[in-house]
Amino acid sequence: MPAEIIDGKMISSEIKESLKEKLEDLKRKEIVPGLAAILVGDNPASQVYVNMKVKACDKVGIRSEVDRYPKELPESDLLNRIEELNGKESIHGILVQFPTPAQISEEKVILAVDPKKDVDGFHPFNVGMMLAGKPTFLPCTPLGIQELLMRSGNDPSGKHVVILGRGSLVGRPLASMLFQKSKGANATVTICHTATRNLTNLTLQADILIAAMGKAKFVTAAMVKPGVVVIDVGTNRIEDPSTKSGYRLVGDVDFDSVKEVAKAITPVPGGVGPMTIAMLLSNTVKACKIQSEA
Amino acid sequence: MPAEIIDGKMISSEIKESLKEKLEDLKRKEIVPGLAAILVGDNPASQVYVNMKVKACDKVGIRSEVDRYPKELPESDLLNRIEELNGKESIHGILVQFPTPAQISEEKVILAVDPKKDVDGFHPFNVGMMLAGKPTFLPCTPLGIQELLMRSGNDPSGKHVVILGRGSLVGRPLASMLFQKSKGANATVTICHTATRNLTNLTLQADILIAAMGKAKFVTAAMVKPGVVVIDVGTNRIEDPSTKSGYRLVGDVDFDSVKEVAKAITPVPGGVGPMTIAMLLSNTVKACKIQSEA
Repeated sequence: MPAEIIDGKMISSEIKESLKEKLEDLKRKEIVPGLAAILVGDNPASQVYVNMKVKACDKVGIRSEVDRYPKELPESDLLNRIEELNGKESIHGILVQFPTPAQISEEKVILAVDPKKDVDGFHPFNVGMMLAGKPTFLPCTPLGIQELLMRSGNDPSGKHVVILGRGSLVGRPLASMLFQKSKGANATVTICHTATRNLTNLTLQADILIAAMGKAKFVTAAMVKPGVVVIDVGTNRIEDPSTKSGYRLVGDVDFDSVKEVAKAITPVPGGVGPMTIAMLLSNTVKACKIQSEA
Repeated sequence: MPAEIIDGKMISSEIKESLKEKLEDLKRKEIVPGLAAILVGDNPASQVYVNMKVKACDKVGIRSEVDRYPKELPESDLLNRIEELNGKESIHGILVQFPTPAQISEEKVILAVDPKKDVDGFHPFNVGMMLAGKPTFLPCTPLGIQELLMRSGNDPSGKHVVILGRGSLVGRPLASMLFQKSKGANATVTICHTATRNLTNLTLQADILIAAMGKAKFVTAAMVKPGVVVIDVGTNRIEDPSTKSGYRLVGDVDFDSVKEVAKAITPVPGGVGPMTIAMLLSNTVKACKIQSEA
């Protein structure tokens, strides 16, 4: 029996709907969450992402503003602008779209954002709170994965979660979140990467397998056990002359073969991707609530 | 063949000897690292720990001072004292001995210490830097375990490290350190805890097994594979009428049986314990060097 498809588009829509209700409650108190996005340079993918985020804000009722700067923007100008936004009462969340041009240190940018407005969950202070299991902003993609698991009826508690990839956006934070003694977590977690030996021996043990290493169609049916739940975080472009653009997006999982073995699986696109933006919105509303109560 | 005993006392002595040399170099530049320890109340174990730390400072040539307060000390007084020490140039490291009495929030104490003087590596900012793999103060016990592994010729790179326990002092930070792509790390890491199913199935796969869950003699020979390297972080008091005190310390590992199967094993006491203090000294010297260059 082929796997249930975990529909990230649908689940993210549900989340956005419930955010709308929260936003209407806030509106009655004359509170409107504000998100500031900063885009430096003309990277086409970054422009697409920022536009998607702004559009998603509009749809649910979050006020957003985008600062667009030429790619030559000096680092100090960007840091000053972040400082301004840190102090601006109408802005509750700040996001700087990465990658930034070479003259700008991403580390300095991350450190410049006030942890209270760090809706991406990138600031070391928030990362540390996350590892300690304390309340904080959780990074959007891992948080979206946790929501996908819970809302598709695949609570990780007591399960063996095997994570492929130790990146700072997914593997590391997700591992830190899933072994916590808390709701939506409490899993035994194994984190694998380029230095892992006998990888298949480990992936075969996964009750839940998270593929986040950025290698097209890497995980095959022979690498997973029947009944596994597979979350595919990869978005890899591969050539496909049959499409108009000449390429198409595939995940880190060989979807067609793995779906015959798995209990449930996320598609690419339409799985993890839509969740990331929904979680950004959710974090922005959370930031607004915290800052409005303070 | 019984296991090689990894001698934490000897290895920590080597580390302290090399610190002495560094301290003599600093002295020639008229720089003396200073550590401030704060002890609130009269918990006997805490008194022993603080005395051990002060004595160890003396031995290598770190200047130390201890603030001893009655157990009724108001939280605000402690936080004010930490603030003072944050600003004191001759103090490079600050440690507050835990546990503190009930009226004092350990979380607030941790947040009060300037991350630059946080030689325990407890501040969320430093914890976040650790998870990100950035330069920071690493917490003393996990750092000591990493040193034990490297100095006993058991580089974790490419190995499967299974950690028992997800505590904030050992399990969590150690996992975060050992999966990093860096020297002394680069391991596949599995973190197990009370919710883990089929625990023995996982411990049997460990190339390196770290027991840090605080259950006396929990890990038995039947739970490990021949040739495993075992690091025992437990210190549990068990009754022993044959001793003068009526009790003795044992680890989380059943040393006598496991040493017959393992390649190498740390004893309790004399394994991880002495390393923790050596790493505190090492972090204090590091803090001094960073602050003196600034």
